[in-house]
Amino acid sequence: MESMVRHLHEAIKEVRITPAEWMEAITFLTRTGQISDNKRQEFILLSDVLGVSMLVDTLAHDTTSGATANTVLGPFHVSDAPHYANGADIRLKQTGEAMWVAGGVRDTEGRPVAGANLDVWQADDSGFYDVQRPNDLPEWNLRGQFTTDGNGHYDFITSKPLHYPIPSDGPVGDLLNALDRPFIRPAHLHFIVTADGYAPVITHYFDDRCPYLQYDPVLGVKSSLLTRFEPNVEHSGSAKSDSVKWTARCDFVLARGGDDPSA
Amino acid sequence: MESMVRHLHEAIKEVRITPAEWMEAITFLTRTGQISDNKRQEFILLSDVLGVSMLVDTLAHDTTSGATANTVLGPFHVSDAPHYANGADIRLKQTGEAMWVAGGVRDTEGRPVAGANLDVWQADDSGFYDVQRPNDLPEWNLRGQFTTDGNGHYDFITSKPLHYPIPSDGPVGDLLNALDRPFIRPAHLHFIVTADGYAPVITHYFDDRCPYLQYDPVLGVKSSLLTRFEPNVEHSGSAKSDSVKWTARCDFVLARGGDDPSA
Repeated sequence: MESMVRHLHEAIKEVRITPAEWMEAITFLTRTGQISDNKRQEFILLSDVLGVSMLVDTLAHDTTSGATANTVLGPFHVSDAPHYANGADIRLKQTGEAMWVAGGVRDTEGRPVAGANLDVWQADDSGFYDVQRPNDLPEWNLRGQFTTDGNGHYDFITSKPLHYPIPSDGPVGDLLNALDRPFIRPAHLHFIVTADGYAPVITHYFDDRCPYLQYDPVLGVKSSLLTRFEPNVEHSGSAKSDSVKWTARCDFVLARGGDDPSA
Repeated sequence: MESMVRHLHEAIKEVRITPAEWMEAITFLTRTGQISDNKRQEFILLSDVLGVSMLVDTLAHDTTSGATANTVLGPFHVSDAPHYANGADIRLKQTGEAMWVAGGVRDTEGRPVAGANLDVWQADDSGFYDVQRPNDLPEWNLRGQFTTDGNGHYDFITSKPLHYPIPSDGPVGDLLNALDRPFIRPAHLHFIVTADGYAPVITHYFDDRCPYLQYDPVLGVKSSLLTRFEPNVEHSGSAKSDSVKWTARCDFVLARGGDDPSA
């Protein structure tokens, strides 16, 4: 609190906040709390767009361990997604273009990690998560949990995700508008990768050709988290299908240590 | 925003805020917004207890003008209080000990300001404003507006105010408890003094013998805003009464300039 209050006072003195600006800030913060409920957390969104979430995440993780980099959890994760066998199709509504996602989980010495859990979720080809369109999209659409095999491999079929805007109808939207800041998150897949004895990784893989990569409003992009959504590539695996138009490889490295990144 | 975000990041890095602490802060800010409504503004209270309100006020006012110092408006002001003639009794419920409040309004050259408006409000002898106890206390209890006479004088009868706790049943109360900070505001009278051609003064006068003077949770006390609540002093004025046990002198100086301190 001492540090927070000191820096808050320094900022106010630096720009000589006026009483009218102060009142605007009070109103903004109040609206940010009042629009939040158990399905929407506008203060987390504010933290995201101010780069606070990424900063806290960076401070919490040892970036020298060799593990896959973390990025923001985001507001759309839902716990206890269905467990599927590798190769399963997580499209509960068949829209967009099918994409095969496959990869391996290894430790920092390059050894496969068998039995690792991958919790995956993403937006659809229109940029919507199931929870945003409960009337149109089946519950658990484009969500699932997978377990790596004895070689540390996993794979599944999904829909190629689209970039999408963060919620802009609240105070955070007003703030970004006032600052002329963009709203569009580049296309990505979410992953939480866990395995006994390893530090969890909460991250995304981004479409490295997405035109919005450089303007992520929540500042979540890291160069190590880019992957190519390859068109029409022959693939071998448990989910071959002529109708699968894209392939994305998403590999992960876990570091030893059982620490919970949320603690 | 650039300054605010830079200082916010500096504070987070300085103390290495953990994800759990970050989540605690998100929850705290959300609750602070959600408990606020048109009768309670918890973010203003938060600003008050962090010294932000006083800092913004200090930056907004020329403290070298010779005018009476400002202090926090507080959450209990109600606009359009009844207008009374000088000497009137603003106790709509007869509780506590009567106090005669009198003084003059002058300009920075010492000349009386006739026709100045004084908007006054205060807590009662139990520490409550009318708006806090709408079932027990009449509306406009211990509130009123007065106009200075040709000599710049005003006076009225009121109830000697008691110190009182700031609201402690919300997130700000939890914060002060966690920091072992006191809750009690020292006894005071509120004034807004306005006159055409002068900068308004929003201030308090504090009981200079109140034991809580040094621990004002909103940091509103200034040495120039202390006055003595004198017992049993003979007074001359329009409101003589043997039943008036106390006298408080509250003088004001206005500086030229029509600027609105709230702008």
